[in-house]
Amino acid sequence: MSKIVECIPNFSEGRNQEVIDGLVKTAKSIPGVTLLDYSSDASHNRSVFTLVGDDNSIQEVAFQLIKYASETIDMTKHQGEHPRMGATDVCPFVPIKEITTEECVEISKKVAERVNTELNIPIFLYEDSASRPERQNLAKVRKGQFEGMADKLLEEDWAPDFGDRKIHPTAGVTAIGARMPLVAFNVNLDTDNVEVAKSIAKIIRGSSGGYKYCKGIGLMLEDRNIAQVSMNMVNFEKCSLYRTFETIKFEAKRYGVNIIGSEIIGLAPAKALVDVAEYYLQVEDFDYGKQILENHLLG
Amino acid sequence: MSKIVECIPNFSEGRNQEVIDGLVKTAKSIPGVTLLDYSSDASHNRSVFTLVGDDNSIQEVAFQLIKYASETIDMTKHQGEHPRMGATDVCPFVPIKEITTEECVEISKKVAERVNTELNIPIFLYEDSASRPERQNLAKVRKGQFEGMADKLLEEDWAPDFGDRKIHPTAGVTAIGARMPLVAFNVNLDTDNVEVAKSIAKIIRGSSGGYKYCKGIGLMLEDRNIAQVSMNMVNFEKCSLYRTFETIKFEAKRYGVNIIGSEIIGLAPAKALVDVAEYYLQVEDFDYGKQILENHLLG
Repeated sequence: MSKIVECIPNFSEGRNQEVIDGLVKTAKSIPGVTLLDYSSDASHNRSVFTLVGDDNSIQEVAFQLIKYASETIDMTKHQGEHPRMGATDVCPFVPIKEITTEECVEISKKVAERVNTELNIPIFLYEDSASRPERQNLAKVRKGQFEGMADKLLEEDWAPDFGDRKIHPTAGVTAIGARMPLVAFNVNLDTDNVEVAKSIAKIIRGSSGGYKYCKGIGLMLEDRNIAQVSMNMVNFEKCSLYRTFETIKFEAKRYGVNIIGSEIIGLAPAKALVDVAEYYLQVEDFDYGKQILENHLLG
Repeated sequence: MSKIVECIPNFSEGRNQEVIDGLVKTAKSIPGVTLLDYSSDASHNRSVFTLVGDDNSIQEVAFQLIKYASETIDMTKHQGEHPRMGATDVCPFVPIKEITTEECVEISKKVAERVNTELNIPIFLYEDSASRPERQNLAKVRKGQFEGMADKLLEEDWAPDFGDRKIHPTAGVTAIGARMPLVAFNVNLDTDNVEVAKSIAKIIRGSSGGYKYCKGIGLMLEDRNIAQVSMNMVNFEKCSLYRTFETIKFEAKRYGVNIIGSEIIGLAPAKALVDVAEYYLQVEDFDYGKQILENHLLG
């Protein structure tokens, strides 16, 4: 069994097809790595790549992509709607199989060190790799964006984790870290009143007193004229999907509102859903690693 | 993505360690095949092997195992509690990944033909590979066992699918076929009255008018003093675990009995449980192949 790690680097280029093609080519050039997906957004001027590989290959591909981005993306000329601070803005490593979060923290630190040493880009470690609590949250790390980073690095609390207090002139600053896989999970309600979804989102999300590992907002699905609680489950092992689902169900009852369906957007680890099945079927003593047949197949 | 097939041959030897070791050695000798598990039962005098491999390797390993069994197991001397008709008694092929049941039927027929041609063992195709409805059920095919097979093959309806109407003198007859993965799923009740479990089992199992793809019995868990509905879910795509679970729940209510837990025994395909999560979370439009991250990892 080999260790499998997912890496989802975000690059500050979503318009120049030549650069995007170069990133794709680089992503595909490392043996042991599979490029699962990539998407570019012109208004954000940003591209998100999803790669998986073993614990060594994933480090190599992350480094090569950050290197290529630093050579081709000039942040002094970058414009786009999405907040950003570097040519490679952020590069998370996610444990998928036969590997712990702690090992992914080690991987993130190794890549961070190499990027700084060879490319001279200052690095903030974030999420589970963060060196202090206020650096866990990417939004806080990135605050000030590329344009404000030169000054930010000089602030007492914002020396980078790797490198000097000096931005790379064109590639800026990069955040690197380990985090759990994220599951995008939306719950649809039989109401056209978005306020119901908004007040439920406020109850369930960690930032306003709900479940620590749930982020959520309420919004309207205009085409269906229904309200939705849209969530990012940032640690499905510590907060399973069924828990927010059942909480939304009983909170919605206060308004005479029911759940009419849910959506899982993009990729989800099988375990996030097997955990849900275990709960509803009241399964005793299930061993995910041993009892799921596919877990014996990954080479 | 390569096609992945599971093969679970049952051999009529559970006592002679030398023969069992030889089977293990043979199982491990084919590149592309992984021996997931094997277990031998002395009172049954039978060994069950669980192998996975790509669509070609799995055929080769199945043939080599059947060949080895035919050279080392003498059915004229076999005694054991479990019904059996051949040195290799039964050899099912199960679709696991990127492969259909129909393709596994083809695989089963190719192996059946080769076994008959090279080893001169008559073959009955069973389950999804069966040439007629009464051959789907292994128990019906095997009825008469090794000792009765010579006569059975001469009966009008029981010409083998491959081979002449004549058993192999020491290796007997083998059943080969494709079937869906089976999930062993038990539901525990808060009663010490086994009759409740027995009457619920009768309601849910296909053979007495319940769900076609569910086999079930009621029994006591003596050590816990509770009754259990013990099931084999033989096609979780056509009858998901949640369906029997919810049916047991509402049938048990008639007796004032509740479900207190469930058990999944041995291996289960991830999809069997992801399907359950989809039901309870009311997930709209989930694409198992595309949205489960691990499905992109199998080489």
